[in-house]
Amino acid sequence: MANENEQIILDDEEIFDKDLLDDLIAKENIDGFREEFLALHSYEQSEYFEVSDDDIRQKMYRYLSPDEVAEFFESLEIDEEEYEDLFEEMNAAYASKVLEHMSYDNAVDILNQLSKKKIASLLMLMNREDAKEIKALLHYDEDTAGGIMTTEFISLTINTPVHEALMRVKEQAPDAETIYVIFVVDEEKKLVGVLSLRDLIIAENDTYIEDIMNERVISANVADDQEDVAQTMRDYDFIAMPVLDYQNHLLGIITIDDIVDVMDEEASEDYSRLAGVSDIDSTDDSIFQTALKRLPWLLILTVLGMITASILGSFEETLEKVALLAAFIPIISGMSGNSGTQSLAVAVRNISTGDIKEKSKFKLALRESGSGFLTGITCATSLCFIIIILYGQPYLALIVGTSLTIAMTVGTTIGSVIPLVMNRIGIDPAVASGPFITTINDIVSMLIYFGLATSFLT
Amino acid sequence: MANENEQIILDDEEIFDKDLLDDLIAKENIDGFREEFLALHSYEQSEYFEVSDDDIRQKMYRYLSPDEVAEFFESLEIDEEEYEDLFEEMNAAYASKVLEHMSYDNAVDILNQLSKKKIASLLMLMNREDAKEIKALLHYDEDTAGGIMTTEFISLTINTPVHEALMRVKEQAPDAETIYVIFVVDEEKKLVGVLSLRDLIIAENDTYIEDIMNERVISANVADDQEDVAQTMRDYDFIAMPVLDYQNHLLGIITIDDIVDVMDEEASEDYSRLAGVSDIDSTDDSIFQTALKRLPWLLILTVLGMITASILGSFEETLEKVALLAAFIPIISGMSGNSGTQSLAVAVRNISTGDIKEKSKFKLALRESGSGFLTGITCATSLCFIIIILYGQPYLALIVGTSLTIAMTVGTTIGSVIPLVMNRIGIDPAVASGPFITTINDIVSMLIYFGLATSFLT
Repeated sequence: MANENEQIILDDEEIFDKDLLDDLIAKENIDGFREEFLALHSYEQSEYFEVSDDDIRQKMYRYLSPDEVAEFFESLEIDEEEYEDLFEEMNAAYASKVLEHMSYDNAVDILNQLSKKKIASLLMLMNREDAKEIKALLHYDEDTAGGIMTTEFISLTINTPVHEALMRVKEQAPDAETIYVIFVVDEEKKLVGVLSLRDLIIAENDTYIEDIMNERVISANVADDQEDVAQTMRDYDFIAMPVLDYQNHLLGIITIDDIVDVMDEEASEDYSRLAGVSDIDSTDDSIFQTALKRLPWLLILTVLGMITASILGSFEETLEKVALLAAFIPIISGMSGNSGTQSLAVAVRNISTGDIKEKSKFKLALRESGSGFLTGITCATSLCFIIIILYGQPYLALIVGTSLTIAMTVGTTIGSVIPLVMNRIGIDPAVASGPFITTINDIVSMLIYFGLATSFLT
Repeated sequence: MANENEQIILDDEEIFDKDLLDDLIAKENIDGFREEFLALHSYEQSEYFEVSDDDIRQKMYRYLSPDEVAEFFESLEIDEEEYEDLFEEMNAAYASKVLEHMSYDNAVDILNQLSKKKIASLLMLMNREDAKEIKALLHYDEDTAGGIMTTEFISLTINTPVHEALMRVKEQAPDAETIYVIFVVDEEKKLVGVLSLRDLIIAENDTYIEDIMNERVISANVADDQEDVAQTMRDYDFIAMPVLDYQNHLLGIITIDDIVDVMDEEASEDYSRLAGVSDIDSTDDSIFQTALKRLPWLLILTVLGMITASILGSFEETLEKVALLAAFIPIISGMSGNSGTQSLAVAVRNISTGDIKEKSKFKLALRESGSGFLTGITCATSLCFIIIILYGQPYLALIVGTSLTIAMTVGTTIGSVIPLVMNRIGIDPAVASGPFITTINDIVSMLIYFGLATSFLT
């Protein structure tokens, strides 16, 4: 037995034999293809589907039943724009059957990428019950608890005896997203408790659900932000969490696999914004698409950069007197930009992981400014020595050093205060991207540097 | 019933009544404290513990048994350095009992923060069996599958009949980290299959484990990097994954809650490095600690910045001729830095999410350079118009525009090629931090700008 067993170890690059599958499809060996393909894990099936071209996909639709396709569509990870094409290629009746067999939350995620017209036509072709459930879920905002929940959960009433409960779970199991968390409701479908399958399995046979359930339920409201839900589920180490309406009726559940996706999304978002790039995960874009997506931001930065240039232009006289001043423009603007980005990152990260409380915001800004001053004065001192040694100009060293210290102090203050203020007035602080802070700091640091130099020279 | 029920909704800031607990402790009302405290979820208990001072913690140790403390120590999130103090404050015999009652993987995580001497003394006080298991786990590198796995899993032998299996699961349940994934081993403890509790519950009573288990097991090797394990578990939507030695013996399991922590860690790491800041999550640091942690990087950047300054200094003559050239230093270095950081972020993110295959690396670098050229020429054209309108100097516009285009093309190339090359030669590409790329791009862009200007003027 042990030797027959096919162990798949992480390190293997090839998790399935693509060439074999391609070959079976090319030879139109339906049974052979089905045998090989259906033996794969649904994630591997989705990987094969993703790398295959239209012709192969069309054949796959013919060789596989809608519920077999639905199985791996749950794991599909393609760019949002591609879904439209994907569903155009597919026969509409077949497509609606595929969606019918998917879990509701994933079907809704896909439908959200399609046009209103396409959604309506697909829902029309579905069986009435599934269409109704999916239609209800489509109403919720994609970023809310309602938008990521599914209605396929296991619920019991409080007066169920334990020996009956396992049977009820078994009945509801085929359709449920998870059977490991069981929700307990009263006659009005209000949530009154929760228990794990583990609790149920180790419970004494002669007790009732009411006796073993946990009444202190942590739940999400249907309108809660998905990021907050993710935070709570991580904090509490939940594998599923109930979603309620405003009257405490149980509407659906959110499972840990959705939360993992949310976390990934949010981390990617914060990261992209720090770099000022919106298309970080679109690897398939062409050069033109990439350029087009980045251009708006870069044009704004060009205009902002022109402000810096105009300010420096107005100091032309000073620059003509001491041309060497120009040599230190990059280091002063660069260091103020770098330390500002550090403070920005710390502030944004603390806000988005929820680590920061209202009263400690001021403390954070103060710490960033203070550390900006301390690091500034240290870097400035080293720089002064280097300038005196290299150029023998103590006055230049003094101007550059003082400017660097002030620029880094102000830079860290701007970097931390802007996101904190944005968070305060309800704007997602991550939109204060790295390049934006850097460019603001360019303007400010140049004003400091040349203001100081000019007043020194006159 | 429904009205008695205490619903906890996400939005509530106060998840427990700290003042009440403080008050009960102050009044030394042991029973009252125990009743209130033990009714909380372990995450809430850990939150209360984290915000309490030494005096309160000492009383908590007296009022609560080691296994009650162990319960919420599993959820504890404090800075790594604080564990040393925490375990100094605690009576050693009590501390060893707490660790004994924790799940092995979490006990190991804590012990890894303590001194060798402290670990040895705590292990001595533990019961022999737990000490042995924990000692074995301590051998593995913290960042590997072995370092995050636990040995508390449920295993069955292949010849177990289904009707017996549920009983076996029930027996092993109290100690198991998860009972929802069941591992099937042969006589030599080699892993031969896996099944979910769901499979077991819906299985026919007259079958054997062998008939319902999945033989195609996805597993991790004990030495695998935790990041790779996290990636696989996310891809496959696993809630638990087996860890094997080189002979396929089942050593332990990794559960989804550990993976969520790993993901969080890794995202934080990538993010910090993009900003060039190592202490992103240490909110409790003082101004001096913060400054000290950031200083090394900033000093390196100062020295690198001095290189830029020296290069510009060598162009003093050119600067004296046309002082206005200096006005465009920030925009050229800034734009090349910004677009370079964008490319860096895209490359690092694609490498770390495993989205990129060997052959598409070249494609990615090419796309970044190409998009750098396209966005560069567009921004440069706009900038030329502005310069001509504002200053009426077409030659200046030409020099600045050409430099900007070249600098952005080279900047994006550097930003994408450096991390790809680092990944190729086995260095974590995230160490090529944003500030580093920005500073390299400063040097290169200034060489381009003043090289071009000088050759134009002579």
